[in-house]
Amino acid sequence: MTEDEPTREESAPPALSRRGLFGLAAGVGAAGLALGAGAGSAAGVAIGRSRAAEEASPVYPFTGTHQAGITTPMQDHLHFAAFDMMAGTTREDLRSLLRDWSYAAARMTQGLDVSATGAVGGSPEAPPDDTGEALGLPASGLTVTFGFGPTLFTADDGTDRYGLAALRPAGLAKLPAFLGDDLDPAASGGDLCIQACADDPQVAIHAIRNLSRIAFGRARLRWSQLGFGKTSKTSAAQATPRNLFGFKDGTANILSDDTQALADHVWVASADEPAWLAGGSYLVARKVAMLIETWDRVRLSEQQRIIGRDKSEGAPLSGGSETTAPDFDKKDAAGGLAIDARSHVHRAHPDVNDGIRILRRGYNYVDGNTDLGRLDAGLFFLSYQRSPVQFVTLQRALSTDLMNEYVRHIGSGVWAIPRGAKAGSYVGAELFT
Amino acid sequence: MTEDEPTREESAPPALSRRGLFGLAAGVGAAGLALGAGAGSAAGVAIGRSRAAEEASPVYPFTGTHQAGITTPMQDHLHFAAFDMMAGTTREDLRSLLRDWSYAAARMTQGLDVSATGAVGGSPEAPPDDTGEALGLPASGLTVTFGFGPTLFTADDGTDRYGLAALRPAGLAKLPAFLGDDLDPAASGGDLCIQACADDPQVAIHAIRNLSRIAFGRARLRWSQLGFGKTSKTSAAQATPRNLFGFKDGTANILSDDTQALADHVWVASADEPAWLAGGSYLVARKVAMLIETWDRVRLSEQQRIIGRDKSEGAPLSGGSETTAPDFDKKDAAGGLAIDARSHVHRAHPDVNDGIRILRRGYNYVDGNTDLGRLDAGLFFLSYQRSPVQFVTLQRALSTDLMNEYVRHIGSGVWAIPRGAKAGSYVGAELFT
Repeated sequence: MTEDEPTREESAPPALSRRGLFGLAAGVGAAGLALGAGAGSAAGVAIGRSRAAEEASPVYPFTGTHQAGITTPMQDHLHFAAFDMMAGTTREDLRSLLRDWSYAAARMTQGLDVSATGAVGGSPEAPPDDTGEALGLPASGLTVTFGFGPTLFTADDGTDRYGLAALRPAGLAKLPAFLGDDLDPAASGGDLCIQACADDPQVAIHAIRNLSRIAFGRARLRWSQLGFGKTSKTSAAQATPRNLFGFKDGTANILSDDTQALADHVWVASADEPAWLAGGSYLVARKVAMLIETWDRVRLSEQQRIIGRDKSEGAPLSGGSETTAPDFDKKDAAGGLAIDARSHVHRAHPDVNDGIRILRRGYNYVDGNTDLGRLDAGLFFLSYQRSPVQFVTLQRALSTDLMNEYVRHIGSGVWAIPRGAKAGSYVGAELFT
Repeated sequence: MTEDEPTREESAPPALSRRGLFGLAAGVGAAGLALGAGAGSAAGVAIGRSRAAEEASPVYPFTGTHQAGITTPMQDHLHFAAFDMMAGTTREDLRSLLRDWSYAAARMTQGLDVSATGAVGGSPEAPPDDTGEALGLPASGLTVTFGFGPTLFTADDGTDRYGLAALRPAGLAKLPAFLGDDLDPAASGGDLCIQACADDPQVAIHAIRNLSRIAFGRARLRWSQLGFGKTSKTSAAQATPRNLFGFKDGTANILSDDTQALADHVWVASADEPAWLAGGSYLVARKVAMLIETWDRVRLSEQQRIIGRDKSEGAPLSGGSETTAPDFDKKDAAGGLAIDARSHVHRAHPDVNDGIRILRRGYNYVDGNTDLGRLDAGLFFLSYQRSPVQFVTLQRALSTDLMNEYVRHIGSGVWAIPRGAKAGSYVGAELFT
């Protein structure tokens, strides 16, 4: 096992701070007290989801060098949520929240209820700890990945709310504006983020719902996004999926078994500052609306010119198969470049971006339809990189490619992704040492 | 084979009316003509999704006595869409739309592109017929079910736009208002509806997207809904799923192999009027928002009292297991009724509703979150019945049950569901004979 692989030890969640779950019930008076009692007296009641989980379903460890959900083979469904700390919360509130979140995430990723008493094992006179809709469902490959936004370290007004300003990584700042940005503040930013991925949407949604609930009184959901269907290949075993423009996407992505590329492009190293982020990464999220109906009326040859690949196989227009490296100097029969210099594949390529690569992990989204009867759909782009500079460089190149006529960036966020929780500890513990 | 089973003959889609696909390209001038030519010349080019479909994945026939998607075991994902005919359209527009929709649906349900030339087999100088995002994906159990709303027969202003008023079933009318209704017109009604269900959301979404596209110039998407995770058991082989309140739901549903119950409660018989609807059904859709955060603070015993079943196993509170019939006369230790008379299970039970039963086929939905950071989530209720009166009777009983404190009906629609397409014909052909 190398330093770059998650450890496979059994996850050992930290001791639960009951404050979070207790806080849940505070609104119902006496029932709040009953929850505490119920939880205490129910020790040994092993009611959880694993009992009924009979299907073969991947289970990923929560603890390890790196958080799960980054190099984990992409699951089928995403529920992403950004949170803001509530006004008046303290450093200890943040710390207890992170501890409670890790405790619950460690359990849920193993296919268990959110606590030992869970959905049905507590006192009948208290609200259950777990909301119950995942009872009987297997772990479904659930991963839960936590991130810290720039505002967690320094609020927009400059306040150091949690005594963390000195620990803020130099690279962790709101992304610069890009050409064509049309960002909705209600789908951007957030002090904290959680990426929940699972093969069953009910399991991913259950995770976000219960983590939101645990945050009660400390952090509040700012925005969220559901996604499906993958848009990037993250392991060699996966077929390259298609995006909502009908093209294979993410062919040249960093694969999860390419240890060297991960070390070079994804993981923050000890030599990078600050020390607490070593083994971590940076997550960039971009909600990219796709003008589906407009795209669908573009002729095939033009669609292919815009992307730089053929639609059928995903081969670069310079020839070969999907995995053939594009030849940007290749001429077509008419003497022009086979791959347009403003095509998406050219503008995104490491060869024209100082060798920059990122680990893409985005999902398609459909948020219903607009008032005009058009699909409200697109790409929820997620990428992991060693520094946000990688994304910024690529996006500057991409913001003038031919595809921009058919997309709008409407949401944005950047978060530092700490290393994985050590056994007996929690994600983010290094911030408080 | 009985009359009540879908025929298993190979689907033989009707001849394509090219008007629909031609209409798609009309906006791009010369390319529109090129599409026609490309489609014609590409006969024999067998490019479709089935080629790359290597996974085992159910394929359901499109033609048959009944439309698929009613008694079909519930797939994992739903994309439902309601359409309005566009102003100025003719009877022939409607007829050609239905013909084109059946042609495309017959192909897509078999794992094929929307037309013979599909996503990549047409002229490069024309927009592809198929949007391409399902290329390489298997059929994934896709079913496409079409329905006709009251306004298709008689517009709200009384106009008989398509010469169909005389064929309007007496039972096909806007549902009456129920206590507590808070309906959004933008999530209600529609001249036509399409229910697309598949085990892969990308396949269901691809179907609705391409059928919307085919409707260009004739019908326009009015509203749509994505759903996941099932909320009802429709075959004995399925475990009873849980709704977003964490309870098993649909335990007492009509199962797809219960031929007698289907004949009694779901399929319109020849003796019912009008004749064109024999072998069909009525679909009711209700978008039911669930006040998740409020529910989650209710103590377990109260949650169980409201539902009338225990949360763990789904057994009625009168005792037994999930499949035990509830005993509404059973007393608890304190001498009260074990199952509250206002519980959901009591109010919904056939024994207190003149034996009325319906076939439920709803899905959970999560439409992101509200501005207050709460989950915008609930149940997209779908039920099939021989007459809308069945739903109306049940909903009148349910609209005062204990659960109403935690739900809001925000969308509503009713559609007549014609019989399945005959080989060589299309869904709805009986309207035009």
